[in-house]
Amino acid sequence: MDETTKYQLPESELPTHWYNIQADLPKQAPPPLHPGTHQPIGPADLAPLFPMELIKQEVSSEREIAIPDEVREVYRLWRPTPLVRARRLERALDTPAHIYFKYEGASPVGSHKPNTAVAQAYYNKQEGVRRLTTETGAGQWGTALAMACNFFGIGLKVYMVKVSYEQKPYRRSIMQIYGADVVASPSADTNAGRAIRASSPDTPGSLGIAISEAVEDAATRDDTKYSLGSVLNHVLMHQTVIGQEAIKQMEMAGEYPDVVIGCAGGGSNYAGIAFPFMREKLAGKRATRFVAVEPEACPSLTKGEYRYDFGDTAGMTPLVKMYTLGHTFIPEGIHAGGLRYHGMANLVCELFDQGYMEARAYHQTAVFEAALQFARAEAIVPAPESAHAVKAAIDEALEAKAAGKRRVILFNLSGHGYFDLAAYDQYLAGKLQDFAYPADKVKEAMAAVPVIA
Amino acid sequence: MDETTKYQLPESELPTHWYNIQADLPKQAPPPLHPGTHQPIGPADLAPLFPMELIKQEVSSEREIAIPDEVREVYRLWRPTPLVRARRLERALDTPAHIYFKYEGASPVGSHKPNTAVAQAYYNKQEGVRRLTTETGAGQWGTALAMACNFFGIGLKVYMVKVSYEQKPYRRSIMQIYGADVVASPSADTNAGRAIRASSPDTPGSLGIAISEAVEDAATRDDTKYSLGSVLNHVLMHQTVIGQEAIKQMEMAGEYPDVVIGCAGGGSNYAGIAFPFMREKLAGKRATRFVAVEPEACPSLTKGEYRYDFGDTAGMTPLVKMYTLGHTFIPEGIHAGGLRYHGMANLVCELFDQGYMEARAYHQTAVFEAALQFARAEAIVPAPESAHAVKAAIDEALEAKAAGKRRVILFNLSGHGYFDLAAYDQYLAGKLQDFAYPADKVKEAMAAVPVIA
Repeated sequence: MDETTKYQLPESELPTHWYNIQADLPKQAPPPLHPGTHQPIGPADLAPLFPMELIKQEVSSEREIAIPDEVREVYRLWRPTPLVRARRLERALDTPAHIYFKYEGASPVGSHKPNTAVAQAYYNKQEGVRRLTTETGAGQWGTALAMACNFFGIGLKVYMVKVSYEQKPYRRSIMQIYGADVVASPSADTNAGRAIRASSPDTPGSLGIAISEAVEDAATRDDTKYSLGSVLNHVLMHQTVIGQEAIKQMEMAGEYPDVVIGCAGGGSNYAGIAFPFMREKLAGKRATRFVAVEPEACPSLTKGEYRYDFGDTAGMTPLVKMYTLGHTFIPEGIHAGGLRYHGMANLVCELFDQGYMEARAYHQTAVFEAALQFARAEAIVPAPESAHAVKAAIDEALEAKAAGKRRVILFNLSGHGYFDLAAYDQYLAGKLQDFAYPADKVKEAMAAVPVIA
Repeated sequence: MDETTKYQLPESELPTHWYNIQADLPKQAPPPLHPGTHQPIGPADLAPLFPMELIKQEVSSEREIAIPDEVREVYRLWRPTPLVRARRLERALDTPAHIYFKYEGASPVGSHKPNTAVAQAYYNKQEGVRRLTTETGAGQWGTALAMACNFFGIGLKVYMVKVSYEQKPYRRSIMQIYGADVVASPSADTNAGRAIRASSPDTPGSLGIAISEAVEDAATRDDTKYSLGSVLNHVLMHQTVIGQEAIKQMEMAGEYPDVVIGCAGGGSNYAGIAFPFMREKLAGKRATRFVAVEPEACPSLTKGEYRYDFGDTAGMTPLVKMYTLGHTFIPEGIHAGGLRYHGMANLVCELFDQGYMEARAYHQTAVFEAALQFARAEAIVPAPESAHAVKAAIDEALEAKAAGKRRVILFNLSGHGYFDLAAYDQYLAGKLQDFAYPADKVKEAMAAVPVIA
């Protein structure tokens, strides 16, 4: 009975640096290209959208970058987050595997997103930026940035995908509690928004459209910059506090993971848990397996092609080399809104391409089945995105059982599902829909991907 | 900058005993009376509804009662909860006061309720009970008991007040995720429910009605007992893990509270934070102040009379001496549903009557204003109930500022408000309604309180 459940680090063990995996990549990652010239972009190209310190981090080859005291002070409100040994789940599965999860749902907005939101708001404030814009789907990112902007006294305008704005009012409420200005996207406030409203008055909106609006807003106002919640190098780097803490907590538990698992939409929570462990693999010290988990309805790593593509629907962003389903691909309306992205962070793609990690895709119903099993064992209701990692962890544990082998499994529970309960209602009512891999739609979207010489 | 924000106890410091304040009361509390005979009730009277171990705890005069290992094992999923120094709130108020809060919203269901739910499910399981019934309003108690019953493999039927069942589907979803059977009350499943549906087909339901249904269900089935989430002595005692942890955490911070604050509906979260500190006051070691906070719309301690009354609307429960507004009093529909109770736990009333504590009442708008100020400073969005404690803590801090004095304030943040965001929407839209003290309705209800010789 006196077995530890939660491995809790004291605040004094809060990481002092972010880990920049660019310093350790065996083969350098391909640079982003200018959308017009197809030439590698420089800092000046990004300056209208991002503060210089984040641009420097984006291209930095320094291994460790110090976390400013002001950022660590905010992290302390909820960090270090607990590492939990899922003993009840292990017993329910009757597996010899040891299952650990890092619980990022412990943040005030219920996900890992504040790890980068706080850093981004801080650097913008430092450089005199008075207002930020961003896009959000279901609202995890928007709530995190709203909290961060409130702390640093910066204004925020959030372009929230229309269907979520209407169907999921509660994350919108939280953004407003923190003082953010939230509009449904496409909105009447930008040229991009107005054009789409004119041509498709009934559109439910999409992340790609919302990005176009937020970027236009920031690019056309001197006091305003833009903030992105995933995909970019500096965003992934800010998330490495997760894995760094987990390394120390696994030491407390006296174990080292055989496999590290995270769900992957844009790639930031996966990178957050994986990169600090990957550092030891890249250094040749460990043979750890890494698994990124995607929805079958939007399987960029498992079914996409590794080539240059735009980050947004309208083609306004730089071209980034990534496993892509085509920037015009609109995934079906699965409940894991944070995984509905056509591409993937370049750094994750590069590690996948270089063979350092695996990827797998699951259907929605199987994911919710795993989520329910987890909730009944461990009490926490996972976010639909995070439930993809839960499903993979359960499968790994069952494989270990079948093989009669010990296996130490670590996954990132990137968020809780208390704002996603309508999805659970549908699952419990047997009304949840599965979506097959949309081969035809992807083929069509891939035809629109620019060909780079 | 290197100032601690969260005081986190290791799992090894989880309390081993509950503290039973009945052992230390200077004047013994008046016994509950049989609703028919008006004679003190004995264990046999309660046996149809509660397992014998809980009945023993209800009347125990032992100072400490050991927490079973099985209960502590579940507590470990989220306990010890953090004690947080609200440094940002202090700065926002520019006060010399030090403000600490104990964060019970860290539990998987977001409130303090599992502290007793887990214990009650355990003892029922131990005595062979196969099924529990309970009532719930907004759902905090129902979700906690659903989680607990799921862990111990007991069935649960929740009678959920109809208006909440329809308007707040998400806590219902969580109960169903944990496997509970949830019906809208009044239901067609009990005589009490059918009678009310026949006479008032459009009733929104009430806690009093739901209690009557849950009690009837349990009393008429051999395999079933009933569970209550507040008011009773054993329920308050189970909550004392909160204050016991807080004592150790205040020691870590090197301070002792001058004032301890909790919101009070039935009295259990207030008792949880207050009683372990009160123990030192009753022993003459400390002069700590204690403040229970109520809504102006339902101010039982501040405006009620201390006399014997029923716990439920229908008059089926034992008579308990308490500060009451009359058991037939139906409070206005304030958002702090957990504080809409006509009475108060006898142990809290007795301490108030004996002069060991204070009480105050606030209007709804002032409470939400304080909640918003707290959320913008500390990021956590408080439950409307807990926001009453927040308001009192802010007032205490501002008083200290006006007096130019140091003051150490501790309050219980008994739950988060992520299921109560519609209420915040109303506040932000300026649509929140205040309710004056309903003197006439109380006068009418008090006329229906039985007169005990």
